[in-house]
Amino acid sequence: MKAELVSVGTELLLGEIVDTNAAFMSQRLAEIGVDVHFRHTVGDNLGRIVSVLELALSRSDAVLICGGLGPTQDDLTRESVAEVTERPLTLVAEAEERLRELFARRGYAFTRNNLKQATVPEGGRLLENTCGTAPGLLVEHRGKLLIAVPGPPPEMREMMEREVLPRLRERLGEHVTPVFSRVLRMADIGESSLVAQIDDIIRAQTDPTVAPYAKPGEVTLRLATKAASEEEAAPKLDGLERRLRQRVGDHIYGVDEETMEVAVGRALREAGATIAVAESCTGGLICSRITDVAGSSDYFLGGVVAYANDTKECVLGVPHETLVEHGAVSEPTALAMARGVRERLGADYAVATTGIAGPGGGTDEKPVGLVYLAVADADGAVCLEQNWPGTREQFKWRVSQYALNLVRKRVLGIEVGG
Amino acid sequence: MKAELVSVGTELLLGEIVDTNAAFMSQRLAEIGVDVHFRHTVGDNLGRIVSVLELALSRSDAVLICGGLGPTQDDLTRESVAEVTERPLTLVAEAEERLRELFARRGYAFTRNNLKQATVPEGGRLLENTCGTAPGLLVEHRGKLLIAVPGPPPEMREMMEREVLPRLRERLGEHVTPVFSRVLRMADIGESSLVAQIDDIIRAQTDPTVAPYAKPGEVTLRLATKAASEEEAAPKLDGLERRLRQRVGDHIYGVDEETMEVAVGRALREAGATIAVAESCTGGLICSRITDVAGSSDYFLGGVVAYANDTKECVLGVPHETLVEHGAVSEPTALAMARGVRERLGADYAVATTGIAGPGGGTDEKPVGLVYLAVADADGAVCLEQNWPGTREQFKWRVSQYALNLVRKRVLGIEVGG
Repeated sequence: MKAELVSVGTELLLGEIVDTNAAFMSQRLAEIGVDVHFRHTVGDNLGRIVSVLELALSRSDAVLICGGLGPTQDDLTRESVAEVTERPLTLVAEAEERLRELFARRGYAFTRNNLKQATVPEGGRLLENTCGTAPGLLVEHRGKLLIAVPGPPPEMREMMEREVLPRLRERLGEHVTPVFSRVLRMADIGESSLVAQIDDIIRAQTDPTVAPYAKPGEVTLRLATKAASEEEAAPKLDGLERRLRQRVGDHIYGVDEETMEVAVGRALREAGATIAVAESCTGGLICSRITDVAGSSDYFLGGVVAYANDTKECVLGVPHETLVEHGAVSEPTALAMARGVRERLGADYAVATTGIAGPGGGTDEKPVGLVYLAVADADGAVCLEQNWPGTREQFKWRVSQYALNLVRKRVLGIEVGG
Repeated sequence: MKAELVSVGTELLLGEIVDTNAAFMSQRLAEIGVDVHFRHTVGDNLGRIVSVLELALSRSDAVLICGGLGPTQDDLTRESVAEVTERPLTLVAEAEERLRELFARRGYAFTRNNLKQATVPEGGRLLENTCGTAPGLLVEHRGKLLIAVPGPPPEMREMMEREVLPRLRERLGEHVTPVFSRVLRMADIGESSLVAQIDDIIRAQTDPTVAPYAKPGEVTLRLATKAASEEEAAPKLDGLERRLRQRVGDHIYGVDEETMEVAVGRALREAGATIAVAESCTGGLICSRITDVAGSSDYFLGGVVAYANDTKECVLGVPHETLVEHGAVSEPTALAMARGVRERLGADYAVATTGIAGPGGGTDEKPVGLVYLAVADADGAVCLEQNWPGTREQFKWRVSQYALNLVRKRVLGIEVGG
């Protein structure tokens, strides 16, 4: 089954709100095996909504519309569905009664405008809204489905789960082959370098498919297969994952929604080890990411954000001479920070960052983007130099991602170079 | 000028990511007076991308495409623009050189795949990407504009501001009445309480308009007016802003894009003062937000993330008896943390947080969401108790927002209670 999504609302086209509904609806449809090839966003304008619906109906089996079901003149989804299906809007007495009751219960005045929320294109049906006033719509037209759900996210989600997805699943019947997918996440390899290492696997892909995707500070591989059930899909995905791990396993830090901070936490927890952090250029982001994980107090002892040189000296014990001789952004300082915080907090592992986030502060010798990352444990300490120009935000993120990955590899006994 | 936006990426249609880029681009286009009537989302499929581009070109003056500019086989924006404009892709030697340099600097291997990022449909031009590898594209075709920007949000935003918007503005020339707007940002007042205090102003609005909007941890007021120029708009917006400031001025921490961390930085810079931070439940987020601001090293000395009690004792000097008698989440501990970090780092101001982020760790007496915030300066210290149940992420954000606002008010001499 092919479906298209239509988000209705001028506020979306003005960028006043982010369309999280479209992502939710897309995800749930993909999960039950509905293919969404196109998504549209259109303002509160009858002619334009109708043109989008006509296009979508001409090439897909179902059209799901979100928004525009309110009581005002700007809410035109009902009228648009009526026009595109050439059916008059008719009042549903039962729905009118329910609305009047709802308004009375909330102490709102019931106006003539509100009546329109009890109308439906002839032959269609209203979908009950248990969290708000606007009912949804469902119209079958020449073998195709038009479904409209309200725009407020909780109302949309509830109606999708209770009314829409079960109907679509039923209609899909036996023909449905849902997609099962798995995402492998990597942090210390570029997209093109990754693709070069698994080029033959990508080229030979049929089922499961494998697709790379680059995000700031990480690259993911999405494995996907159509199957009747999780049980049927799992061995296929497992087999492909195994082949990929043989090539690039050391780079894979997590699966699916697992973030780097969760992966680090799991590694530390399994090793029964604790960690302390010393941050200069990342300014607290590493600590903040570690503590985004519930239960992180089991392995995270704390950290020192040493921005000023004095703080590096008096809180972390970086020798004054090291700072004078090599500068704050240097390998000796990074190593001293990692060793200092590890010792002072009594942690098993420590990681430290010092670099030039920019936009100011760079020199020819030490440009913006230069960073030293050190990791220390009972066996000693190593330091890596990297250079990541970019915005301050990107720089902090990439350095934090790389630093956390260093810890992960060190804890797991994977070679980190240096 | 009418424009349509096209977001490219199968991951969008699968709902794996939310399309924040489309909202950003829509907003910026609206601000300069470009009308966006349709937005499209399409997967990594040449035929479908081409069909969307053809439709958009048939009815609009400009088409802006976001995403699909990467180096892999799945990245098809370049090829789609070439096909729809019937121009071959040609290699730009200069761009190839820049890419090779960039890869060498980052220590990545330059593969054949990467070459395609240096190509452009004949007659078009590449738009420089200063934060990543993928250049953008600009092609004029039969009097219409096709523009493509990369998908990673920081790269898209930077390229929009530097390359795309100035060109569109120039092309718009005299024909537009742009909307000028101003956003007033508040952190320590709820939306309904704010609306109650300025109800008469909201009811009487015509030009400029004023609209409240609630986001997690803050409320904003958007003032907007149509005018021929900034000079014509400014006095109208100034007048309304003045009236609003008379009512709720102490709550307004920033204007437009000014974040709380920027506002705090400005207050400290103007006072010639420094700050140190002691964080428990916020886990480094306050430090990280402060250091998101370029130049923050001028006033931010550093911070201590004291998760374990030992760290609170030995790094911050919180007395052992205080922790035993009152517990880590208590007013005496918060005050000792603020005083301790201020003294140890030699800062003018210090702020400290200790609370229960959850989901675990709550008790009847000290439930999840309880937090103590302390601020210290030469005049002493105050502590506030708050209770904000919610997710761990929401909790950390709200506490950091409130803590930064406490510092702002303390530095500016606004009463903070306690």
